[in-house]
Amino acid sequence: MPDLSLEAIDQQLIHLLSQRIELLSERSPSSSTTPVDTELQKAGVPPFVWNSLVTSCTAALATRPLRHPDEPQRRITLIGGRGMMAQFFGQRFQAAGHEVRLLGRQDWPQAPELLQDIDLALVCVPIDRTLEIIRQTAGYLSPTATLADITSIKGPMLETMLAAHPGPVVGLHPMFGPGVESFLSQKVVICPGRDRPAWQWLVELMARDGGDLVESPPDEHDQMMVTVQAIRHFATFGLGVFLAQDGIEVGRSLELSSPIYRLGIDMVSRLFGQDAELYADIMLANGDRREAIARLAQTFQVLAKQVQAKDRKGLIEAMNAASETFGSETERAVRESDRLIEAMSILLAADRVVDSASAASSPPDME
Amino acid sequence: MPDLSLEAIDQQLIHLLSQRIELLSERSPSSSTTPVDTELQKAGVPPFVWNSLVTSCTAALATRPLRHPDEPQRRITLIGGRGMMAQFFGQRFQAAGHEVRLLGRQDWPQAPELLQDIDLALVCVPIDRTLEIIRQTAGYLSPTATLADITSIKGPMLETMLAAHPGPVVGLHPMFGPGVESFLSQKVVICPGRDRPAWQWLVELMARDGGDLVESPPDEHDQMMVTVQAIRHFATFGLGVFLAQDGIEVGRSLELSSPIYRLGIDMVSRLFGQDAELYADIMLANGDRREAIARLAQTFQVLAKQVQAKDRKGLIEAMNAASETFGSETERAVRESDRLIEAMSILLAADRVVDSASAASSPPDME
Repeated sequence: MPDLSLEAIDQQLIHLLSQRIELLSERSPSSSTTPVDTELQKAGVPPFVWNSLVTSCTAALATRPLRHPDEPQRRITLIGGRGMMAQFFGQRFQAAGHEVRLLGRQDWPQAPELLQDIDLALVCVPIDRTLEIIRQTAGYLSPTATLADITSIKGPMLETMLAAHPGPVVGLHPMFGPGVESFLSQKVVICPGRDRPAWQWLVELMARDGGDLVESPPDEHDQMMVTVQAIRHFATFGLGVFLAQDGIEVGRSLELSSPIYRLGIDMVSRLFGQDAELYADIMLANGDRREAIARLAQTFQVLAKQVQAKDRKGLIEAMNAASETFGSETERAVRESDRLIEAMSILLAADRVVDSASAASSPPDME
Repeated sequence: MPDLSLEAIDQQLIHLLSQRIELLSERSPSSSTTPVDTELQKAGVPPFVWNSLVTSCTAALATRPLRHPDEPQRRITLIGGRGMMAQFFGQRFQAAGHEVRLLGRQDWPQAPELLQDIDLALVCVPIDRTLEIIRQTAGYLSPTATLADITSIKGPMLETMLAAHPGPVVGLHPMFGPGVESFLSQKVVICPGRDRPAWQWLVELMARDGGDLVESPPDEHDQMMVTVQAIRHFATFGLGVFLAQDGIEVGRSLELSSPIYRLGIDMVSRLFGQDAELYADIMLANGDRREAIARLAQTFQVLAKQVQAKDRKGLIEAMNAASETFGSETERAVRESDRLIEAMSILLAADRVVDSASAASSPPDME
């Protein structure tokens, strides 16, 4: 066999990946896992390398070109356009070939030009300024323009948009931070307001990019966010404050942590790198959230007392009682997080390989 | 170009992956990312497919064949051999070609045959029975056999092993659950006891499998585990008990959760699928742990009171104060968890593709 360069191998690999993805799109992808364990062993390819190729090729089928061929070019204004989330939306809109304008705090004198004749005004400002900015924006819009927002509370926002603007309205809650590169598998909650056909293209754009869209009435959304957002943020926040007060050596603790612990510590560290005001506002946003947080602290207090009293039986009972709630989800959660631990193991192993190679190859005059 | 079958494509891919991994092992892997963005676009291969291939090929360099060619076959007895962790160790030992014997609760009458003439006795029993089983085991061992344990507390275990057995001793803490398939990127804490050359092969076996080994004195290990194990488990446990008491609909909350939230909920659900007694024992194991848990609950109480008093300023101050501790780790944590969110996005997207394909292909007579 000819001795190939890395570049030549990579070109052939890309060509084959392309063929593989196209072939999969024409048949049932569940039939795609060919039994190749002995072949892999003979070739010296660890099974995780192959599994990860099979998984990512299958995932590729979840995405399509961002813009449908029949879809006209849209004019979109992002209000609060210099924020991170607005930049993410802007980047995806531009990748789809739409025209994107930004309207920041200092651009309101240009509001008439920036907001007239547009198809969509997307409000991306901090939660405590959203209602005011919705009203301000609506005054400039034509009745055919869609007014939308991306705030994490949907009831009051939708109500205000419907009152301020007679045209199409939709509330979005993109449930992710600005670190992602596309909508792939990201959840976006959609709260329909008025005149769906006018903003259906926006829903489709996110879906074509692999987004996982879910419709929810504003009430249900806001109630659920008490749990999955305010409570989880508070639990992470409280753990981080405690670890800091207790004088944890974060670096050494990571050296002694396996992927799954590391992940927990990463989640905590991640939160403390983000905007303190945003997190405070998410936790304080309404009475439901503040009361749920008080109840969470109460539960911690009760369980901690059982721990201090060495009440082994009581703790086991509390765990078994809660198990019933999680019962049907546990098996899935274990399977899913096992796969994720493997994914993280691969990332960390690759980092270690690169680190040790660059350590070994540092030029001698550096010493 | 010829029309290839999936099987033919896969065989060519495996061959090229093998060549790529071999080529990388001969040069600096940090130089391996070739600029192929436009080629990918032309070929219709999403960038995440390529990135994941590059990462897993690099990670492949972290592993080698489990047993060194010069390494003799070892005789190993796993005590508590029917437990999940013992089975994991047994599977890796067997994959390396060593001889593995199991000694369960009912096998003590056969202890002389099972423990004589062995190279390693690995104690894998629940934490509250470990000290007793260490003493029991030591009585049967030859002075050249290594005595080792895998308990999550190392001080008392090492002390007892050194007192009970005059030969080689080492304490291990594999910091992962039984869900993993190999040692790849898994942390194993090593507390050397006595006569390292006798058990160096065991350390090397784990390292060759991609394990991330770290040495730590028993005192440091036990202190650090208060933080990364007892406190994290308690925080997850308390959150789960609260969510169950508060009547969360786990399934619907997952429908409304993005990968990163889903991960948090998975962590909680995962814990409730595991052995309640093991977790109770980990939290109750010693006074340091019980007191740290009480302090954690206290911190939650203080912060929850600030939330109820709508003390926005106080919460922001608490967050900024803790940020200083996490400061240097935050950037890495954000970068690392961003990559992990992408990995989870790929897994979830692949699941959705397979689900929708099997839904579409279900036979009509099913309706």
